[in-house]
Amino acid sequence: MNDKTPIDFWFDFSSPYGYLLSEKIDAVAAKYGRKVKWHPVLLGVIFQATGSRPPADGVSSKGTYMLHDFHRSARHMGIAYNPPSRFPLPTQNAARAYYWLHGQDCALARQFAHAVYRGFFVDDLDVSSPAVILEIASKLGVDRALKEVPLGGSTLETALQSPEIKARLKEQCETALKAGVFGSPHVIIDGEAFFGADRLPQIEHWLETGGF
Amino acid sequence: MNDKTPIDFWFDFSSPYGYLLSEKIDAVAAKYGRKVKWHPVLLGVIFQATGSRPPADGVSSKGTYMLHDFHRSARHMGIAYNPPSRFPLPTQNAARAYYWLHGQDCALARQFAHAVYRGFFVDDLDVSSPAVILEIASKLGVDRALKEVPLGGSTLETALQSPEIKARLKEQCETALKAGVFGSPHVIIDGEAFFGADRLPQIEHWLETGGF
Repeated sequence: MNDKTPIDFWFDFSSPYGYLLSEKIDAVAAKYGRKVKWHPVLLGVIFQATGSRPPADGVSSKGTYMLHDFHRSARHMGIAYNPPSRFPLPTQNAARAYYWLHGQDCALARQFAHAVYRGFFVDDLDVSSPAVILEIASKLGVDRALKEVPLGGSTLETALQSPEIKARLKEQCETALKAGVFGSPHVIIDGEAFFGADRLPQIEHWLETGGF
Repeated sequence: MNDKTPIDFWFDFSSPYGYLLSEKIDAVAAKYGRKVKWHPVLLGVIFQATGSRPPADGVSSKGTYMLHDFHRSARHMGIAYNPPSRFPLPTQNAARAYYWLHGQDCALARQFAHAVYRGFFVDDLDVSSPAVILEIASKLGVDRALKEVPLGGSTLETALQSPEIKARLKEQCETALKAGVFGSPHVIIDGEAFFGADRLPQIEHWLETGGF
């Protein structure tokens, strides 16, 4: 297998552990000469298809623990984190915007993904709102950056409702399910799956040794 | 708070991640001058009380992943692991034997706990069986080691069915629930909870810094 195959990074924009891993995965991969393909998906779709549930669903002691653990894990990893006042949030607008941008400019889409995650988990923005998504994109100069009309139409605002972009997100969720993704974050390196931000040390060990 | 308070380590003998943490927790705690109190409990009781379910319950892709992750996590941590042919197993006999031994000799109970875990996750023993539990204890010289009659009777065989030992295990499960335990392994350091073997780096960081 070609060891320069990109790593796949599956995540939902509402996943705190997805945010934590998003702040580290590119640098860890780059250290070992690998690129990362980012794939925002909708956990609601994944959970429904797999029969899974949110990790703390209905278990109050686990819910309390996890809210605390998000924050502590962020400190442990040296990542800014402020518990959002609205959580979890629907993320289809963020994911659609990502794929619309990605059709035109991969690097810009990556910047946008970071901005959405930081907007949600640092600045407490309501990233479910189309207006907030448009503002995040605007701050990255999206209107100026797009040189041609990408799939989904000529403006981000219309793209959020375009059938092409909805279909693209659906197709990504289906691909995730076929790859065995059942939660967020989920990293796949040459067929080897790693679930959770806490698998970062194993991911690094795997990249370093080519499997252990 | 007295920083020499023992750490509480809650686990079920059928929990692979509990086994992994059991191989590390004492040494990590000792490095920072702390002792560890081991508390085997029954996850079935914990799940029923909290409304929780086994992590991969009904989600086949997650179940497949976890079986693989147990093994890979063991390799990553440098711990012997052979996937047991019978999994999971009921662990009330192992837990009762632990508490019976603990009433007499804490160090022997600790050795016994290691032997049960290694018997299950290295030597593929059926640790649900009273005969296997008695044999594990016998190999540790339990008949010779016990100097007086502990709570639960004079032999391990009768203790496995004694009301006193059953009550002790039930009480430990209730204490676990009061402490917020919802799974295995669950470590509590001065009121701070850490769930999962993958929290070991955070546990060590916490012990080193007194909180971060």
